[in-house]
Amino acid sequence: MQSILGLDIGGANTKACLLNLNKGKVVESKDYSKYHEVWKNSQGLSEILEELKNLFFMDKEKANEGNLTSKKGIALTMTAELCDTFLSKTEGVLSIIEMTEQIFGDIPLYIWTTQGSFASPAQIRKAPLQAAAANWLASAAALSRSPKLGSGSFLLIDMGSTTTDIIPIIRGKVMARGRTDTERLATGELVYSGLLRTAVNCLTDHIYIDGIQTRVVNEYFAISADVYRLLELISEADYDVPTPDGGGKDPESCARRLARAVASDLEELGMEKVQRIARYFQEKQINIITEGILQNISRKDLSSLYTFVTTGQGTFILQEVARRLSCSTISWWEIVPGAKSQQVMTAYCAAWLLVGDLAIRD
Amino acid sequence: MQSILGLDIGGANTKACLLNLNKGKVVESKDYSKYHEVWKNSQGLSEILEELKNLFFMDKEKANEGNLTSKKGIALTMTAELCDTFLSKTEGVLSIIEMTEQIFGDIPLYIWTTQGSFASPAQIRKAPLQAAAANWLASAAALSRSPKLGSGSFLLIDMGSTTTDIIPIIRGKVMARGRTDTERLATGELVYSGLLRTAVNCLTDHIYIDGIQTRVVNEYFAISADVYRLLELISEADYDVPTPDGGGKDPESCARRLARAVASDLEELGMEKVQRIARYFQEKQINIITEGILQNISRKDLSSLYTFVTTGQGTFILQEVARRLSCSTISWWEIVPGAKSQQVMTAYCAAWLLVGDLAIRD
Repeated sequence: MQSILGLDIGGANTKACLLNLNKGKVVESKDYSKYHEVWKNSQGLSEILEELKNLFFMDKEKANEGNLTSKKGIALTMTAELCDTFLSKTEGVLSIIEMTEQIFGDIPLYIWTTQGSFASPAQIRKAPLQAAAANWLASAAALSRSPKLGSGSFLLIDMGSTTTDIIPIIRGKVMARGRTDTERLATGELVYSGLLRTAVNCLTDHIYIDGIQTRVVNEYFAISADVYRLLELISEADYDVPTPDGGGKDPESCARRLARAVASDLEELGMEKVQRIARYFQEKQINIITEGILQNISRKDLSSLYTFVTTGQGTFILQEVARRLSCSTISWWEIVPGAKSQQVMTAYCAAWLLVGDLAIRD
Repeated sequence: MQSILGLDIGGANTKACLLNLNKGKVVESKDYSKYHEVWKNSQGLSEILEELKNLFFMDKEKANEGNLTSKKGIALTMTAELCDTFLSKTEGVLSIIEMTEQIFGDIPLYIWTTQGSFASPAQIRKAPLQAAAANWLASAAALSRSPKLGSGSFLLIDMGSTTTDIIPIIRGKVMARGRTDTERLATGELVYSGLLRTAVNCLTDHIYIDGIQTRVVNEYFAISADVYRLLELISEADYDVPTPDGGGKDPESCARRLARAVASDLEELGMEKVQRIARYFQEKQINIITEGILQNISRKDLSSLYTFVTTGQGTFILQEVARRLSCSTISWWEIVPGAKSQQVMTAYCAAWLLVGDLAIRD
């Protein structure tokens, strides 16, 4: 029996997935996802990791049963190192690794890198930047190594709460041109716009009210989650990030925040106008995502018959873009072996990749 | 027997529709459409009008038969007065009216105005600007006066070769806020982007080639007709405007022009890349039209349940926008009595409006 924990530590979300394996096959998997703003309290991450250890590795029955034969491992990937609580990405990477080692003790830690392979903590300490923002590659690598992936052209598109990753996978190979996030912003493989946390003034600088073009204020008043919640495209549970004003996540509270984005309020504008403004914001975000995809599908090595592999909370937006571009879509968990619908992709994939690597090493 | 000729004289297209009526009902209609660039040769318009007279009013058999009882009339609407061959719109209006009177002699001429009613040539000579760019209102007025129009909220959207008109019609009334074209550019009721004649550098300032953002040259090298022809969304016959380089209207010639828009050629880029560039241009034009529509549907007097009344060569683009905005569409000829599919809407509507007005006057 093997137990491999995939760990994806983002700036705003810590996601984990435990795979229990028998003879290299996934027999059980458990997910975990917690919103925690690392930039506000980087030490709070320790508590989350502690909770995870108790949840996944302290099951006494199983621990006894597998005392001798069970093999444990942690596959770590991260993006939280970009948080401005760290002076540099290097400092961020080193802090996160140290914290993880402190909590998980002698359970072997493998860190996924932008080289597309795992490294030991000692190796990362020598060159920390290779561990920075490598999580997109974990998902893409798992897809590309899956026997279920066809030999055609795919775009893995992960629309998360904050960003959207667009990764070309061609004939079974990850063909991303950017490695660092900065490079990926240039190639259109990283679009910094997401389903929940994007401030609405980053979607457009104007909207229309009663036919009049009206500028949007540059304040942190309303976010993309308010748009989709008001339009009833996400539930209150899906809105799993803090509201800008600390208010509720019901449609009326969302409308209040959206009205504020044009220096108005819900009483002044009324619900119907705010709904139309929300619809406009949605259209602009669809345009932003489409633009990134159009940049990628202009690549000459990509077949004209490409398929979107969709993942993330924004999958419903990606399906609309796919329809506009007349291309087909498939969900990631239909491709990566053992995965289930609604699972946290990156954490699952990091764990699944480590399973493969350890099997080879043994 | 009445014969009413609707005449829509645009800068690039002269369109006409003859209605033969019996007891006020349309019993026969004939269409005419000719591409002619008034700005290059304003006197050439005389030849077109002469051709029209011979075609529609010189049928000897009918002329004899109806010598005493037949009533003739011309309903004129125009946009050609904006052509830069005229020093001002006033000069343009007066020239076009004079030309029309010279050709059609004593057949009564009624000129449609931005007031939503017909005026005599003498009245227009006193205030010529009311005849300028009134053709959008002829179509909208005909719709609003049709007994078949429901009492809800409609947007009449006419995507022509050069421009797209977006006219709100609410509870049976034309509710356009702009009257002149300048005002309509401000309200979003006139979007200066069309299916055929729009230069591609007016759709976007950049495209993508093999993942690299690439600027578009500001030359008159390729037009929207090249985009849709290459994508096989229009036929060679639909491409009824001159090509920028004087070349062919086959897909390969279109691709050659589109490649030139990024300072390249078809040999260098290859057909597949140019097709992707065309797809990008199409997406940008859809965005431009959508933006104008979103401005209009932000109006507070428009119900959230609005319907597009579509017309013009770009109807297939409007149907895609409707799908994106989750609204229903209906064709104009399903609403205006006696009209047929594929008919030239404005000329038909101008004639139909005059029929109604003359019936009232008699």
